[in-house]
Amino acid sequence: MPQAVVFATEHSQVAALARFCHEQRISLVARGTGTGTTGATVPIEGGVLLSLERMNRILEIDPDNRLAKVEPGVTNQILQTALAEKGFFWPPDPTSALICTIGGNLAYNSAGPRAVKYGTPRENTLGLRAVLGNGQTIHTGVNTTKGVVGYDLTRLLIGSEGTLGLITEATLKLTPLPETKRTLQANYKDIHAAAHAVSAIMAQPVTPCALEFMDGAALAMVRDFSDLELDPAVGALLMIEVDGPAHSIEKETAAISEAASNPGLLEIHTAETTEAVISLWKTRKALSPALRNVAPKKINEDVVVPVSRIPDLIGGLERLSADTGITIINFGHAGNGNIHVNLLLDPDDPDQMSLGEMCLSRLFDLTLSLGGTLSGEHGIGLVKQPYIDREIDPVTLELMRCIKRQFDPRNILNPGKVFPSTA
Amino acid sequence: MPQAVVFATEHSQVAALARFCHEQRISLVARGTGTGTTGATVPIEGGVLLSLERMNRILEIDPDNRLAKVEPGVTNQILQTALAEKGFFWPPDPTSALICTIGGNLAYNSAGPRAVKYGTPRENTLGLRAVLGNGQTIHTGVNTTKGVVGYDLTRLLIGSEGTLGLITEATLKLTPLPETKRTLQANYKDIHAAAHAVSAIMAQPVTPCALEFMDGAALAMVRDFSDLELDPAVGALLMIEVDGPAHSIEKETAAISEAASNPGLLEIHTAETTEAVISLWKTRKALSPALRNVAPKKINEDVVVPVSRIPDLIGGLERLSADTGITIINFGHAGNGNIHVNLLLDPDDPDQMSLGEMCLSRLFDLTLSLGGTLSGEHGIGLVKQPYIDREIDPVTLELMRCIKRQFDPRNILNPGKVFPSTA
Ligand SMILES: Cc1cc2nc3c(=O)[nH]c(=O)nc-3n(C[C@H](O)[C@H](O)[C@H](O)COP(=O)(O)OP(=O)(O)OC[C@H]3O[C@@H](n4cnc5c(N)ncnc54)[C@H](O)[C@@H]3O)c2cc1C
Ligand SMILES: Cc1cc2nc3c(=O)[nH]c(=O)nc-3n(C[C@H](O)[C@H](O)[C@H](O)COP(=O)(O)OP(=O)(O)OC[C@H]3O[C@@H](n4cnc5c(N)ncnc54)[C@H](O)[C@@H]3O)c2cc1C
Repeated sequence: MPQAVVFATEHSQVAALARFCHEQRISLVARGTGTGTTGATVPIEGGVLLSLERMNRILEIDPDNRLAKVEPGVTNQILQTALAEKGFFWPPDPTSALICTIGGNLAYNSAGPRAVKYGTPRENTLGLRAVLGNGQTIHTGVNTTKGVVGYDLTRLLIGSEGTLGLITEATLKLTPLPETKRTLQANYKDIHAAAHAVSAIMAQPVTPCALEFMDGAALAMVRDFSDLELDPAVGALLMIEVDGPAHSIEKETAAISEAASNPGLLEIHTAETTEAVISLWKTRKALSPALRNVAPKKINEDVVVPVSRIPDLIGGLERLSADTGITIINFGHAGNGNIHVNLLLDPDDPDQMSLGEMCLSRLFDLTLSLGGTLSGEHGIGLVKQPYIDREIDPVTLELMRCIKRQFDPRNILNPGKVFPSTA
Repeated sequence: MPQAVVFATEHSQVAALARFCHEQRISLVARGTGTGTTGATVPIEGGVLLSLERMNRILEIDPDNRLAKVEPGVTNQILQTALAEKGFFWPPDPTSALICTIGGNLAYNSAGPRAVKYGTPRENTLGLRAVLGNGQTIHTGVNTTKGVVGYDLTRLLIGSEGTLGLITEATLKLTPLPETKRTLQANYKDIHAAAHAVSAIMAQPVTPCALEFMDGAALAMVRDFSDLELDPAVGALLMIEVDGPAHSIEKETAAISEAASNPGLLEIHTAETTEAVISLWKTRKALSPALRNVAPKKINEDVVVPVSRIPDLIGGLERLSADTGITIINFGHAGNGNIHVNLLLDPDDPDQMSLGEMCLSRLFDLTLSLGGTLSGEHGIGLVKQPYIDREIDPVTLELMRCIKRQFDPRNILNPGKVFPSTA
């Protein structure tokens, strides 16, 4: 529990608060709406929790220059709705869009299905205003799509999980809404066939705007929550979206379908109606809550591997599951190689809990051995700290710590996050 | 002149050299092929110049994962040729591609015409290996298109002009080559009509892969070097390229042509033959050398303004030219609002030289007042230092200096660049 919660509505309040906390050496944890999944908003040292959810104005939408200026507390969904009226969108689309804030999206570099074509916040943000750990204000980036004056502090702040600065305004790069979209469902006999299809799709020129997958265990899990009729022979499913101008969508869809076809493909079809599209996405989005019902202590990871190594990752996970008896369910943003690996554990079984730790450790080693990374969008926060030094070498990690001290000399901004605590 | 030039061929040599220079407090300036235009490779303190042009291997091209690993000294063109054989390209395409290195492209965040659609090195680089100012080695980024473990040091190094680290390896994000391309030439009666067309083109969904412009003075300059037949009524020209799948190129070209049409448009046509395309680009690329012939002391700036403010910038420059009698020639990457402003000066006329300084100062103030930035791709180097603090506020600039010290505690890496010297 924090000692106080501050609901800021103005930049000057954030600056004054940081100055005060700096002087008093009180820790200060920024919070959007707390939907992050790695514990980054838990005020482990008490101190002040700064909620930014009331600092939620859309300051400007400028279609001519394809940019918007927003305060951090606006939700992703409210922004998208306002942008859509002008014919634009902001690519980052976490499944939590309805409830999460742009500030949280930026601080975590959160993404979603569209990242495969349109990138993450790092590719879609032009500039930021932020308050440092001593209360001073910095301005990063530009209003334009090019700019090389000084160092790139914009991307340094993005993904820094509230440890470097408090974002009080963001200039976002907008993309015109595509004219139309097609949603495909491809059923495969097993996960290996689906994984090979993902590689083949990503090796040809038409980039889908979503390329999501679910393995057999995931499908078993959601059958109850879904209107999908799935033949029991289906061992894995890909949801593929293609967007673009109306005159070319059929050809692009055909190119993708062709790349998706391999001997393990059972069936591929386009969702013809809006209802069919909704029902497909409902299935995909039902997964996370469904898993939580079945296994409240599930461990949900979001490792990333190079797309061509997805089959190796899946193979390794099958062996791990066989070795330990722990059910592992995989789904996620396959086009980026970003796989949500879920270990289902029984919290009442102490053996399983320690087995779970071991599985996690082996999962991370496997991921890194395949040239991957520990997290694609959920970040490090509190829960992944013990593993960060398996990925980042000591010199680079120490440099990051040194950079942190420049932004926040008294270590008041979200202390104890990202970096493993030094004994 | 440097005291020594080192031609490194291996990472370990670069690390050993940096360690030595750190110990001996000798300045160390990285150099690709020295094509940069802001003096960033001039070893103003003497010391060691580190040429990376012999460290030029392409280590890996991995089409399945859309990435390549290269050493810094490979030229942009040699890399593009190797990638094209596999059906890919790396978007950054400075006009100097034939002679400049990937290391230089990264250290300057250099871009070119394609940036309007495909972005700069910051949007097209996955990870780096670099040597710090004390000889230690860091590894940044990932092999995948998503990754949020630790701070984004990749983008911090990109554009840092050799002041933070010596890049010894880069993992580049590749893009599939488009199936086809169309090149349009649009002639306008004046620069204002052309500038309005640029805004209109960028406000609709089809993004061109090049949107270059030349004003009337630029056209007058290149008439001698070009096979183009230009009616004297033409006061400005746009070169527009559209790329994509063959089946949609006609429709996309039509959408762009429509957006390009306004009352000031005199004529628009597609370059029908390869020769016609080559001759158009020859005209565009002849500009820089032609200008250098006419005015060896030309001042060439690459300011950026939001696209909708291009007409205001051009209007302001016309007033400036009228006020001072100095010829100003404008061309450049209009789709990004990145305008190459050339002040033609007579070096033998001391009045003109000091007028030139004044013009530059007014150009920068105008650019900033329009929400722009002082440089889109050429960087700060030596020549733009006196102006950096007009764009970057003191707190942010001081933070950048502090970050520099973490990478390079003894300030041996390209000292005296980027930051204005502190008196
Ligand atoms: C059902 C569900 C689905 C999800 N789906 C996805 C998904 O598809 N993709 C994905 O990436 N994530 C997903 N998430 C995780 C989460 O929603 C995102 O990470 C989201 O961006 C967090 O936003 P928030 O406003 O809740 O931030 P919070 O959780 O409140 O904060 C997240 C981090 O940002 C920092 N922070 C917040 N605001 C600021 C600020 N203004 N300045 C500086 N630091 C700040 C906090 O200190 C913390 O470190 C999901 C979560 C849930 C519950
Ligand atoms: C005719 C012509 C046309 C041009 N057109 C364009 C254009 O369209 N767009 C554009 O952006 N630029 C353009 N330029 C500028 C220039 O070509 C680019 O900036 C290019 O990227 C520089 O590459 P280089 O290898 O010559 O680097 P150099 O000039 O040798 O070095 C540039 C900077 O990078 C640093 N550096 C070089 N290698 C490394 C390394 N391995 N590690 C760390 N730092 C390093 C140097 O210290 C220096 O600060 C043009 C130049 C010319 C002469």
